[in-house]
Amino acid sequence: MKPTHIDPERDILAVWHDRGNVAAWSRAVRERRIASRRLVTDAAVVSTVCTRSPRRVIDLGCGEGWLVRALAERGIDALGVDAVPALIEVARAAGGGRYRVMDYAAVAAGELRERADVVVCNFSLLGCESVDALLRAIPLLLSPAGVLVIQTLHPWSACDEAPYRDGWREGSWTGCGDGFGEAAPWYFRTLAGWQQAFLAAGLALAAVDEPLHPETGRPVSILFTLQPQA
Amino acid sequence: MKPTHIDPERDILAVWHDRGNVAAWSRAVRERRIASRRLVTDAAVVSTVCTRSPRRVIDLGCGEGWLVRALAERGIDALGVDAVPALIEVARAAGGGRYRVMDYAAVAAGELRERADVVVCNFSLLGCESVDALLRAIPLLLSPAGVLVIQTLHPWSACDEAPYRDGWREGSWTGCGDGFGEAAPWYFRTLAGWQQAFLAAGLALAAVDEPLHPETGRPVSILFTLQPQA
Repeated sequence: MKPTHIDPERDILAVWHDRGNVAAWSRAVRERRIASRRLVTDAAVVSTVCTRSPRRVIDLGCGEGWLVRALAERGIDALGVDAVPALIEVARAAGGGRYRVMDYAAVAAGELRERADVVVCNFSLLGCESVDALLRAIPLLLSPAGVLVIQTLHPWSACDEAPYRDGWREGSWTGCGDGFGEAAPWYFRTLAGWQQAFLAAGLALAAVDEPLHPETGRPVSILFTLQPQA
Repeated sequence: MKPTHIDPERDILAVWHDRGNVAAWSRAVRERRIASRRLVTDAAVVSTVCTRSPRRVIDLGCGEGWLVRALAERGIDALGVDAVPALIEVARAAGGGRYRVMDYAAVAAGELRERADVVVCNFSLLGCESVDALLRAIPLLLSPAGVLVIQTLHPWSACDEAPYRDGWREGSWTGCGDGFGEAAPWYFRTLAGWQQAFLAAGLALAAVDEPLHPETGRPVSILFTLQPQA
């Protein structure tokens, strides 16, 4: 972590409030430029969500809305929530679902007032305290028997050469194409770190999926399916 | 997997019924020849078990009994269970705990008739169906609020160059010193594979620990702490 990140939680949002990044990101997603998403992780999250046969889904940190559209196409009532107005603008312009501009702090404070059979966070849990607070609010967003589905970087591959311990890392747009400015910092979590966050939020692990890269045979991401603790 | 392993579950036991392997193994453990155990995993399992302040512990697949002795030294009533009479012989000869000769099939069939605050399996879950059956019987061995602690190879490092999927692997005595004969096959489980086995056994994950190698900073093993599902 460079010392320039006095407040990395704030820096994450700042990067996404940059219109140039929003435009470059929307292009990267819509033109399917990110190989891991195209080959593995897009299908993995759709499949894991649909396994639960949800009628309603809330996509937290929905970005430009591809997952909301994919679920809406399958007849699911999908609500996308994102802190960044410009992302919600491009999402709405593409149609196919409902959208709300709201940051995680507001969701954590109970302001969303929606319930769904599945709440999904697809590569959208990038912070530390902001994520811990959000996770604690998840049970209020779930209908009875509802689940939270998180897809995130697999701790093994994401760890890279750095020490295997929870902590802030420098971000990068590598593999996303061009047109990007500054990248956002992100909070690396070990498997044990994720489990601690789930426990603190009263969420119990119901399933783990580790979708594999078709060529390397290594896990590309990890999907946690969680239920409020009984 | 070589085709010679018609019945790998049986081959695991056959390897441990070889007196030469029992002698070599007991020497390796007692002379602390296995670096990962000496540096990391022995202390990790003792610490995770003791965190629960148990009065009684059952060590399934106790081998020559080092963990039973370590717990008994801390005033814990520890029972070691192993399928291999020669291992229980050398364990009893060293004193410091109670021991029973019993295989996992008998434990799975409810023949142990003991209860403990912690049941621990320290690198002793090597099979496939035999382990699945054992896990399903664990709730019967636990006192109220009791937990199962499993220490096993970390799926990332254990995967090595082979594809990341559940399946039988050839064993090896590398790093254990000399005097060994044939090594036992073992059933590799991905993280998702372990979680599926826990779910099928009615066990919920309460905690994960990933003790790190002091030099490489990488996880050496993984410890799962599990409770019967509410």
